[in-house]
Amino acid sequence: MTSPVRVPVQAVLPLMAAAILLVSTLGWAQSDPLPSWNETLPKFQLIDFVVTVTSEGSPEYLAVEQRIAVFDNDGTLWAEQPLYFQVYFIADRIRALASLHPQWQRQEPFASVLRGELHQAFFGEADHFRKLLLATHGGMSEAEFQQQVSDWIATARHPQSGKLLTEMVYRPMVELLDYLRANGFKTFIVSGGGLQFMRPWSEQVYGIPPEQVIGTTVKTSYEQRQGRPVIRRQQQLDFFNDKAGKPLAINHHIGRRPVMAFGNSDGDFQMLEWVTSGQGPRLGLLVHHTDGKREYAYDRDSEIGRLSQALDEAAKRNWQVVDIKEDWNRVFVDPRGQEQ
Amino acid sequence: MTSPVRVPVQAVLPLMAAAILLVSTLGWAQSDPLPSWNETLPKFQLIDFVVTVTSEGSPEYLAVEQRIAVFDNDGTLWAEQPLYFQVYFIADRIRALASLHPQWQRQEPFASVLRGELHQAFFGEADHFRKLLLATHGGMSEAEFQQQVSDWIATARHPQSGKLLTEMVYRPMVELLDYLRANGFKTFIVSGGGLQFMRPWSEQVYGIPPEQVIGTTVKTSYEQRQGRPVIRRQQQLDFFNDKAGKPLAINHHIGRRPVMAFGNSDGDFQMLEWVTSGQGPRLGLLVHHTDGKREYAYDRDSEIGRLSQALDEAAKRNWQVVDIKEDWNRVFVDPRGQEQ
Repeated sequence: MTSPVRVPVQAVLPLMAAAILLVSTLGWAQSDPLPSWNETLPKFQLIDFVVTVTSEGSPEYLAVEQRIAVFDNDGTLWAEQPLYFQVYFIADRIRALASLHPQWQRQEPFASVLRGELHQAFFGEADHFRKLLLATHGGMSEAEFQQQVSDWIATARHPQSGKLLTEMVYRPMVELLDYLRANGFKTFIVSGGGLQFMRPWSEQVYGIPPEQVIGTTVKTSYEQRQGRPVIRRQQQLDFFNDKAGKPLAINHHIGRRPVMAFGNSDGDFQMLEWVTSGQGPRLGLLVHHTDGKREYAYDRDSEIGRLSQALDEAAKRNWQVVDIKEDWNRVFVDPRGQEQ
Repeated sequence: MTSPVRVPVQAVLPLMAAAILLVSTLGWAQSDPLPSWNETLPKFQLIDFVVTVTSEGSPEYLAVEQRIAVFDNDGTLWAEQPLYFQVYFIADRIRALASLHPQWQRQEPFASVLRGELHQAFFGEADHFRKLLLATHGGMSEAEFQQQVSDWIATARHPQSGKLLTEMVYRPMVELLDYLRANGFKTFIVSGGGLQFMRPWSEQVYGIPPEQVIGTTVKTSYEQRQGRPVIRRQQQLDFFNDKAGKPLAINHHIGRRPVMAFGNSDGDFQMLEWVTSGQGPRLGLLVHHTDGKREYAYDRDSEIGRLSQALDEAAKRNWQVVDIKEDWNRVFVDPRGQEQ
């Protein structure tokens, strides 16, 4: 673990003073929009940004149509350890399909999946992840695939916490999504995860509708089946939405440069760079996983969600860094409404 | 010109009675949402559909998030004769760039453009359109390209009417877009035209924001220029958004099957098929260009906007057909607010 570069306290005192004034003006106790965020710098900076760009007459005021915020998913909106949650979906699909593919018992990377050695299966060789992805994400209709995801996500549990995966969503980030939307922002997911793996549950879990989800895709074709059209998923990668792919996908899908970007790994570097190098008010924020007790602690040395270059350059680029241990008083959503 | 198949009058009498009842109930004179539409079948069917799916308690009620309507652009939202308007943009860019490419004077299809023989230039050989498109739509940053489009569309005039091209937008369709949005619909463009050719003006002209525009794309790359990131447009086609490409792009971009689709040519066949073959209430509508006096009359034999198979199958598939001559009392928007 490496400590992030923190901004010296004296540099932010005016901002904190403004935030405290704001808090007292708005009547904090009744209306705190971010209750799972501690009263530390990231919360003040987020609220300061939103108040500034939504105050008519402010020199940094943004018209509603310019209020676009983009969020990475794995490690930013929900957890991603010990393996990306989509890996567990793929593994469960491989197991479900294994009887149709007896050769998988002896064929890598499938054999490792069937032995339960998931890390070896997915990361043992460079091409393994892609092979497992395509074997389970192509060869069916779009409707069939999304039904598989919906059925799976309804009961899939985390291998360590035992929680539903949808309970491994970060409560502070859900509060932030709600807060931004309440202030006229359109919120988008821009994730390396599968586009159609996220859409069946993104609206219910995050309040983000399918048309505001951007992700990795397979090629598709339009076919007739029993006299009705179907969209068929091919076993061929179309677009890998990571690193420099993220700003390109934002340009393609949104067509306007967002003003806020949230990520947690070097895969989000170019997205944050693209967003924060635009003119006018901009906010980039990295979630730094520092809390090995309530969640996971990892950054530079992690195969999943490696955070190194982006952390090194955060201060220089004026990106905020959330230290989960210090800045969040609750980590996960709780469907029962109790403290975590 | 071939007459479209019209639905027998007796089949629609109950619907018309309902529409008349609706009209008297709502107080038509004060609140007609579609004043440029004559009191003929298409108008009644559109209003009947919208009232039905937005009436709580109706068996065909649709939640707001399911109210998605997709519109072709050329020939559906604005005119497309004698040539697609994007052709005039390409030709003007070829002329502007000609001094940098002296060989174009002798090299087809550029030479034909420079001689003003646009039809020959674009449609003389199968590959010409693509060559001209890529020569003018790639090789610059996204910001530069969109500025070129913005500058051009501000003054570009139609070669026959002399109007601004943005005045060649169909007023009845703009009324329809407004009416649908007032009833909770999200409206999307799904066009064979260039994605970034439409976005600079779609919001102002149609009220459709960039993130709800889907079109044909070139490949892009993320590069650094003088220490700042730029998105660079390549001279390489990425996705041609026509025919079966349209439902695939809808699936990719929207991720939910729309419930209304509007087109005018066989290039929209699969989009209408995809939308209207979904379950629940669906509406497909073709704009049939029948008015050679106020606009253009063309269908089966036109190279631009050919309408043949879709017209043949419209009745069988229960797609509505708007006969411009009969069904629209005004054709074009008029920025001065006068009758056309």
